[in-house]
Amino acid sequence: MSDALRRWYIPDAFIPEESTAPAVSHESICVLNPTDDDAHVVITVYFADKEPERSDVVVVPARRDIHMRTIIPEQVGGLRLASGVPYGIQVEADADVQVQYSRLDSTQAAYTLMTAMPQPQ
Amino acid sequence: MSDALRRWYIPDAFIPEESTAPAVSHESICVLNPTDDDAHVVITVYFADKEPERSDVVVVPARRDIHMRTIIPEQVGGLRLASGVPYGIQVEADADVQVQYSRLDSTQAAYTLMTAMPQPQ
Amino acid sequence: MSDALRRWYIPDAFIPEESTAPAVSHESICVLNPTDDDAHVVITVYFADKEPERSDVVVVPARRDIHMRTIIPEQVGGLRLASGVPYGIQVEADADVQVQYSRLDSTQAAYTLMTAMPQPQ
Amino acid sequence: MSDALRRWYIPDAFIPEESTAPAVSHESICVLNPTDDDAHVVITVYFADKEPERSDVVVVPARRDIHMRTIIPEQVGGLRLASGVPYGIQVEADADVQVQYSRLDSTQAAYTLMTAMPQPQ
Repeated sequence: MSDALRRWYIPDAFIPEESTAPAVSHESICVLNPTDDDAHVVITVYFADKEPERSDVVVVPARRDIHMRTIIPEQVGGLRLASGVPYGIQVEADADVQVQYSRLDSTQAAYTLMTAMPQPQ
Repeated sequence: MSDALRRWYIPDAFIPEESTAPAVSHESICVLNPTDDDAHVVITVYFADKEPERSDVVVVPARRDIHMRTIIPEQVGGLRLASGVPYGIQVEADADVQVQYSRLDSTQAAYTLMTAMPQPQ
Repeated sequence: MSDALRRWYIPDAFIPEESTAPAVSHESICVLNPTDDDAHVVITVYFADKEPERSDVVVVPARRDIHMRTIIPEQVGGLRLASGVPYGIQVEADADVQVQYSRLDSTQAAYTLMTAMPQPQ
Repeated sequence: MSDALRRWYIPDAFIPEESTAPAVSHESICVLNPTDDDAHVVITVYFADKEPERSDVVVVPARRDIHMRTIIPEQVGGLRLASGVPYGIQVEADADVQVQYSRLDSTQAAYTLMTAMPQPQ
């Protein structure tokens, strides 16, 4: 990772414990890389009562848009996140990418969506 | 399109595959043009595994507000977007317009809404 | 209204035509005035196919927070807005207030919420 | 609290009066503190028809992420907030934290989520 990092924050992250089939409750960190260079992304997760954890590097290729599900470790740089635990997310990238966070909660059969668009720091 | 372009990004775009009548699942790109000049808008869509696609120019007239449904090619400059495919959106405009993205997902009869307000780059 | 106006925009405004009792479908323009001076707010609404309409001045008193329902003309400076019509909103204020837009859609008994936080221009 | 305060605003705050078990209707003010210093947070709530109320200091420890439920006075610096009352929130902090607001409304069994990401002032 270079020094020219940009950072985005999602203070309200949460993986619901329950799902109603066929929709699986999940969160997505969506990264759009409109540049002509691959972007290197690192995700750090923060908790209420323990030290943060940091992912391996995730590559978002040039001119691609990736939706990473936080419940799938291979999609978030190896992080193994528990459901039912409030936490927060920091996304770092070494390129001028764009970040959005969304949650689908299917605890009830009639699932609900929410989304947030953090500004880079 | 002039050189003085402004750009907005929606990394989390998705057209749900299912709908429950009478509400049709859809996304809208909403553009408000408060200026006294027509705005020329181009939409570029980014995918996980293929090159981006670029729309024809869409005119948003002076002092008008347009809600463009991504599933209707005539409303998004000829783009033919598949449902069930995660993607991302770039909106370019040559005037000082305002952009908002919303999704109505009626996969379940009790549909759900989400909306995001990107900042121009 | 003074010259030192700030403006906020909500490109995706819409009053649903249907409601399921007891929840009434509605939008709210929420204005928080943390200053020690009354704020004077004017709402302009933009449409797809006709000229904008402008409200009378709405006073948001010093140190107060007001949730204005767009379907109640007395709350939005006399504007009479039709349901089922896509439109957009401009909020102008002569003080350093804060603006948020939310929609409750109870077309289905299990209603859905969305909210957006525009940045001042 | 130091002089170098940052402030965030949520004009649309509201605690629904009803809940459907097992999900309790609630709002959360989520604060992520990625710095190596504890942050001191004060919450001020604004109403339509009475003077604002100010909380005691809430400490958000270094490298921690806290989800504060507005209906639990111990989590919001002693504030006792009524349900069913529209209000607005100001968050002040003396460190470079990040703030997000979310609401879960379970008035209907199929609950709905909304979230907003205010920018610091």
